[in-house]
Amino acid sequence: MPAPLPPDDLLIASGDEVRIRQDLVLVALGRRPADRVLRVGRLLDVATRTWLEDQEIAVRGRRIAWVGPSGTYGGTAAERVDRRDLTAVPGFGEVHKHIESSHLTPEHEAALVLPRGNTWTCEASHEFSNVNGPHNLEFWLTARRHGSPMKIFPLPGSAVPPTAYEWGGGHYGYSEQAGFLASSLMVAGLDEVMDWPAVWDPRNPSHDRVWGMIRATFEHRGVVEGHGAGLRDLASINAFAAAGLASDHEGWTAQEVWDKLRHGLFVEIRPHSMPEIVGGLLERGLADWSQVAFATDDRSASDTLRIGATDHNVRLAIRSGLAPEIAIQCVTLNPARHMRLTPWVGSLAPGRYADVVLLDDVDTVSIAEVWADGQPVSDRSRYTGPLPSIAWPSWATDTVNIKRRLGPDDFAIPAPSDAPTAQAALLRPFHWDDAFITMELPVVGGEVQRDAARNVTKFAIVDRFSGEALTSRMFWLGCGPRTPDTAVGCTVAHDKHNLWIVGSSDAAMAQVANRIAEIGGGWVLASGGRILAEVRYEVGGLMTQRPAEALDRDMQALYAAAETIEWLYEPTYSPRWYPGFPERLQFATLTCAPWRWALVAPCEAAPQGFVNVATGETHPVVW
Amino acid sequence: MPAPLPPDDLLIASGDEVRIRQDLVLVALGRRPADRVLRVGRLLDVATRTWLEDQEIAVRGRRIAWVGPSGTYGGTAAERVDRRDLTAVPGFGEVHKHIESSHLTPEHEAALVLPRGNTWTCEASHEFSNVNGPHNLEFWLTARRHGSPMKIFPLPGSAVPPTAYEWGGGHYGYSEQAGFLASSLMVAGLDEVMDWPAVWDPRNPSHDRVWGMIRATFEHRGVVEGHGAGLRDLASINAFAAAGLASDHEGWTAQEVWDKLRHGLFVEIRPHSMPEIVGGLLERGLADWSQVAFATDDRSASDTLRIGATDHNVRLAIRSGLAPEIAIQCVTLNPARHMRLTPWVGSLAPGRYADVVLLDDVDTVSIAEVWADGQPVSDRSRYTGPLPSIAWPSWATDTVNIKRRLGPDDFAIPAPSDAPTAQAALLRPFHWDDAFITMELPVVGGEVQRDAARNVTKFAIVDRFSGEALTSRMFWLGCGPRTPDTAVGCTVAHDKHNLWIVGSSDAAMAQVANRIAEIGGGWVLASGGRILAEVRYEVGGLMTQRPAEALDRDMQALYAAAETIEWLYEPTYSPRWYPGFPERLQFATLTCAPWRWALVAPCEAAPQGFVNVATGETHPVVW
Repeated sequence: MPAPLPPDDLLIASGDEVRIRQDLVLVALGRRPADRVLRVGRLLDVATRTWLEDQEIAVRGRRIAWVGPSGTYGGTAAERVDRRDLTAVPGFGEVHKHIESSHLTPEHEAALVLPRGNTWTCEASHEFSNVNGPHNLEFWLTARRHGSPMKIFPLPGSAVPPTAYEWGGGHYGYSEQAGFLASSLMVAGLDEVMDWPAVWDPRNPSHDRVWGMIRATFEHRGVVEGHGAGLRDLASINAFAAAGLASDHEGWTAQEVWDKLRHGLFVEIRPHSMPEIVGGLLERGLADWSQVAFATDDRSASDTLRIGATDHNVRLAIRSGLAPEIAIQCVTLNPARHMRLTPWVGSLAPGRYADVVLLDDVDTVSIAEVWADGQPVSDRSRYTGPLPSIAWPSWATDTVNIKRRLGPDDFAIPAPSDAPTAQAALLRPFHWDDAFITMELPVVGGEVQRDAARNVTKFAIVDRFSGEALTSRMFWLGCGPRTPDTAVGCTVAHDKHNLWIVGSSDAAMAQVANRIAEIGGGWVLASGGRILAEVRYEVGGLMTQRPAEALDRDMQALYAAAETIEWLYEPTYSPRWYPGFPERLQFATLTCAPWRWALVAPCEAAPQGFVNVATGETHPVVW
Repeated sequence: MPAPLPPDDLLIASGDEVRIRQDLVLVALGRRPADRVLRVGRLLDVATRTWLEDQEIAVRGRRIAWVGPSGTYGGTAAERVDRRDLTAVPGFGEVHKHIESSHLTPEHEAALVLPRGNTWTCEASHEFSNVNGPHNLEFWLTARRHGSPMKIFPLPGSAVPPTAYEWGGGHYGYSEQAGFLASSLMVAGLDEVMDWPAVWDPRNPSHDRVWGMIRATFEHRGVVEGHGAGLRDLASINAFAAAGLASDHEGWTAQEVWDKLRHGLFVEIRPHSMPEIVGGLLERGLADWSQVAFATDDRSASDTLRIGATDHNVRLAIRSGLAPEIAIQCVTLNPARHMRLTPWVGSLAPGRYADVVLLDDVDTVSIAEVWADGQPVSDRSRYTGPLPSIAWPSWATDTVNIKRRLGPDDFAIPAPSDAPTAQAALLRPFHWDDAFITMELPVVGGEVQRDAARNVTKFAIVDRFSGEALTSRMFWLGCGPRTPDTAVGCTVAHDKHNLWIVGSSDAAMAQVANRIAEIGGGWVLASGGRILAEVRYEVGGLMTQRPAEALDRDMQALYAAAETIEWLYEPTYSPRWYPGFPERLQFATLTCAPWRWALVAPCEAAPQGFVNVATGETHPVVW
């Protein structure tokens, strides 16, 4: 008898799930034909961390129906594929990644990362959540709904808004999160809880909102992800774990990660500190890595093209001394188990999506071919799978809501008195001190001035949600152009994603603001009255609907233009603050722990936008 | 300021959970006092599988607020307890246990197993589910609601009824399971899916019911537990995993367990085959035990008093060659993670219940003291914790609904013809053959007769749900009394828990049935017209509301009385079928895989109760 076709199996839903598995059972028993049998030379069983030789994987629909020694499958198959020369490991998963930071829409992200082994991603969605909260879940499920073979499991952002001093785009609390979890099994939990003052301090104005989201996540048996940046002392680590935040990906040192692991936190290690952390954990005798995963967190498409996606993380771990098999567990079984997604991803076992990474060398994680949904989707680094053509609706593409032209006046800082100088509050990128910096700055024509000689420039946040382009501005230290009449800005401004601009003249800053509004978001670099370079992020002001290579060409042009500019530089708290083009200013507008003083768009509690996000204290930017 | 009291924290509920954790955070930070600080000589961190020396655990309410080196807690504590001479490991968890098989009500189970380290149990509830489905969840949460320190996480039974040929007591499908999961976070998932023909075969009359429960469990992000007894061939193991059944506890051989582990199943090893399985897995090079837990499944109170509870399982694993630290992981972190209960149990980490097993010797799992809910509850094997006095309502205590007196005629098997002999269908306990046994038996007075010389006796099932005591009966081989005019019966008859009786005379069988109905369930042994021994299971016909020691005294009296009886014996398929008192007949009425032909209470599809539960085929018991 011809078997009825199971459901399409793109988005996990309980009713379909049952029909799919009823069908798989019969295929496994050999009572219905498999679609395809893939024969491989070796296969890594991540549950036992052992290799099996000469295996076959029987695929039905998008799933694995059967795995076993070649030649022993009892059923028939419409197609047989021989990859005896290759080694199969499960599709790699990202336990915590902001796809927005690739700056590609999800269908193009898939085309970029699938050939690099990454077949499923727990999307840490507080970027798009902050831009369009109501459409966030729809946004993340759209590419898959259109047939993209990458599985995206969205975790709604806990930081929507990031602090009580930010606004626009979305507001998530108990009922929103309960709604998301009830509406789709693709939703695995709550994305990184990062407003630590809101968590611990009952007086914090975001306390009830954040705990409401945590409550909804417990209620629906989801995973509450944490973000413990800067929380390294034992009291804070204990408090963080006691709060029920299940994981941390913000460890920077081996000792910190070791302490967190030992207090019940699942640890997600990012590449930037991986050699030290992996080495340090091995040194301390860690033999059980089941509470460890690797996380990309943020990586641009350009960087992924250069170094790789999840495969890079695995390679780096191996180079840091970890056994390849354990490193692979850290991007397969371990994150799947932590995220409660084992029925679908994380191992080459029946019932799971048929996502297979085929290696021609394990130690170097050399990927010959990737399968997703039971079909080959890549040939070396070339994507060969389906790339759906998606007409992203206006809620995704019209998100930079600036209804007026900005002028230099929008960026002027009037002098507080007739005196020839004024006291000014300054920040640096990643200035995590309890106090802001103060300097005495010159006053000319009734306005407080920059002082390039002392590395002082002007930094602004332009609201892109109200239509009014409400602007806050202040002086910043050690970043931005030294070249006169130059400014750069971007709508990627973690995590509220207003528009930030840094510039050596107010006119250049206005020009950048107006051009970014015209192109619907992205990067603009202007100097001497001309636009030197721009990069469109027309989707959410964060991403572009183009292949990675096309975006990379624009980014390389931006970098090249930026080479013609002289940039201010001073080291700061963060070791990851580099000289040259200040690309990392995208992250300098964060307001989560360990940030204290920050510049946000004007809000009721802080009309000038200058606020200590840990305490709610405000201060004038000049006085 | 005096801190507001957090909620009582007996049953996990999202709203309370948030308030409890908000409070714990402040205690961890030292901003509110801890209730108690426990100092221990060593502490096992199960996440890293490493020991920490001289640690302190700060307790608030029933939870751990803080863990760290002695003397470093930043807050104050109302009380300090010094156990520097002892080693702390997390409270042991049961990943799959039928508390009903202890035959104690949950509050007495707690008093029995807590001193033996078992502080939390995933209750595999299909016994009570089958007796009173509608009240099942309430039953399992009652002791905790009254303050019992053991955490019971009920998994509603998938086998309610066990097969489509059984009835009475409860009927669970999609909506019941969805209701359970929605009503309490204590519900971890779906108890062992064991009607394998109903799973794989779309024509099986229980197919939709079982898959409805699976669907509801997926929908609520619960865990679907499996039961893969006898499924050892690769096709069946693959099909079982493809069905989405996440675990198996029915492995008997190392190779079987190895194959199941390697197909994505979480494996729960029971003691009866532990030495072979643990040894075999070590031999095969298993270095990663994160997908393994230990399970008690069924153990009587008498056996627990004799050999221990979860501590016995750990000891046995260590004696089988496993490192003590890994063995402890197999009853702490591993089952907690599999059951998605890590926020509450499985490690000595902040936010979890303060359940601590204090050992004076690790290798022998020698338990000096157990803490549960942040308080000591035992001194060696003596329980010192709260034992709530529960007035179990009539829905729990009046469950043997037999409204008439039975007589010998209820057990007679009329001859099919006037011939001096008749053909009879026979079963043995654990007769897993595809075909039943046939024998020619004598006819006397119009009734087919037993034949003790050939080990043939009579076995009956009396329905205890309808009030009418509908009875099915047939001949069985190799079990029951050889002594004349003797019968034994019990209301523990897995999994439908009707009343089974085996006897050498119909009058004795009737006497046993009537006496069991009088005492509301339990064991009765009658011989020569006298009741030789009886054991009351007045709660659900499965359990008694008495201390383990009191029940054990009755059981020992039953065993002693049984010594005066001569018992038929023949080996059968199961290696666990022993000569002597046939206590294991409690399990001989199972109908799940790998059972085929079985005797059930009369039902529409099988009026004589003799049915092949794998195919639905029926047959006369004599012809």
